[in-house]
Amino acid sequence: MTLAPWRPVLARALHRNRARVYCRYLQLATTDVHGKPSNRTVVFRGFVGEALQIVTDGRSEKVQQVQATPWAEACWYFTITREQFRIAGQLTLFNSDNDGENIRPNAWQALSAKARQQFYWPPPGQPRDRETTSFTPVDSTEQPPDSFNVLLLTPDRVDHLALRGQPQDRCIYEYTKGAWTTQAVNP
Amino acid sequence: MTLAPWRPVLARALHRNRARVYCRYLQLATTDVHGKPSNRTVVFRGFVGEALQIVTDGRSEKVQQVQATPWAEACWYFTITREQFRIAGQLTLFNSDNDGENIRPNAWQALSAKARQQFYWPPPGQPRDRETTSFTPVDSTEQPPDSFNVLLLTPDRVDHLALRGQPQDRCIYEYTKGAWTTQAVNP
Repeated sequence: MTLAPWRPVLARALHRNRARVYCRYLQLATTDVHGKPSNRTVVFRGFVGEALQIVTDGRSEKVQQVQATPWAEACWYFTITREQFRIAGQLTLFNSDNDGENIRPNAWQALSAKARQQFYWPPPGQPRDRETTSFTPVDSTEQPPDSFNVLLLTPDRVDHLALRGQPQDRCIYEYTKGAWTTQAVNP
Repeated sequence: MTLAPWRPVLARALHRNRARVYCRYLQLATTDVHGKPSNRTVVFRGFVGEALQIVTDGRSEKVQQVQATPWAEACWYFTITREQFRIAGQLTLFNSDNDGENIRPNAWQALSAKARQQFYWPPPGQPRDRETTSFTPVDSTEQPPDSFNVLLLTPDRVDHLALRGQPQDRCIYEYTKGAWTTQAVNP
């Protein structure tokens, strides 16, 4: 299988912006059960095939949203090279009920001890738990807790805008009829 | 009228991150006509009352989307202080047909000569116009061209997450029955 044409472009951006840890942060938009948009920062955890991997708490709103409607658009802005990728596609959820291909155990293994802690905390978004022990660090288990979920975003459209240059360069990649097309467009 | 409780918190973040020009960039999520989420980086152009001001091209997809459904959520991540604001609410569009309160002329005046240029370019998102003259700088007019639109995002919910600290601090502000409520929640 050949690499999607936007992959080397994104790989280059990641490489050229690697000096800043937050170059791996992107904003993931989904729609809620009322059809309203929802948007939050997530951490890019690498590729699984052509899909972008994100870890999330199964008790968070976005997991409920994804179960209702899988559509998402990630917006990824790189501050050093001043370029934006808008990555639209479908989200696939991996949780304790759907744990194919060892996706969850692998992602859990790759997580730092500190990042693992939050999956043992009380439910996110609920009124603040004032029991100090609720947030006391615990030894993480070998296998991920049920709260640990993985999302894979499989892109079907990537819109790349390079702000450098006047006028800027913008290119849209679309997956149609089993293949990727590439179209330069006006910025 | 008293200031909304999230305003001083956001003002402080803007101030403490002002060394980085991109601290004024945020990601705006809307839904398209098919109900799918759409997400792009926009520039914060200051407040009009409690609303966040953004300028946009009237020929862009987001303007069509806003005319169909006004709901939006902005996600704003500050890299120095490591904090996120999720700002949900309704968008109001100001264009040549709806130009109350001098919003458009004021925003146009505040724009740099360079930022004005893009509103004279060929339609964004269309196949790349190869006429070099299409992107040749022009003298901008006193009054904004029809392509120059303004969006105001009037928040009804603000979710503030401060990543510093273990566990992190998270607070949700909601506008209900004519007043703002404040609730500390689990991160």
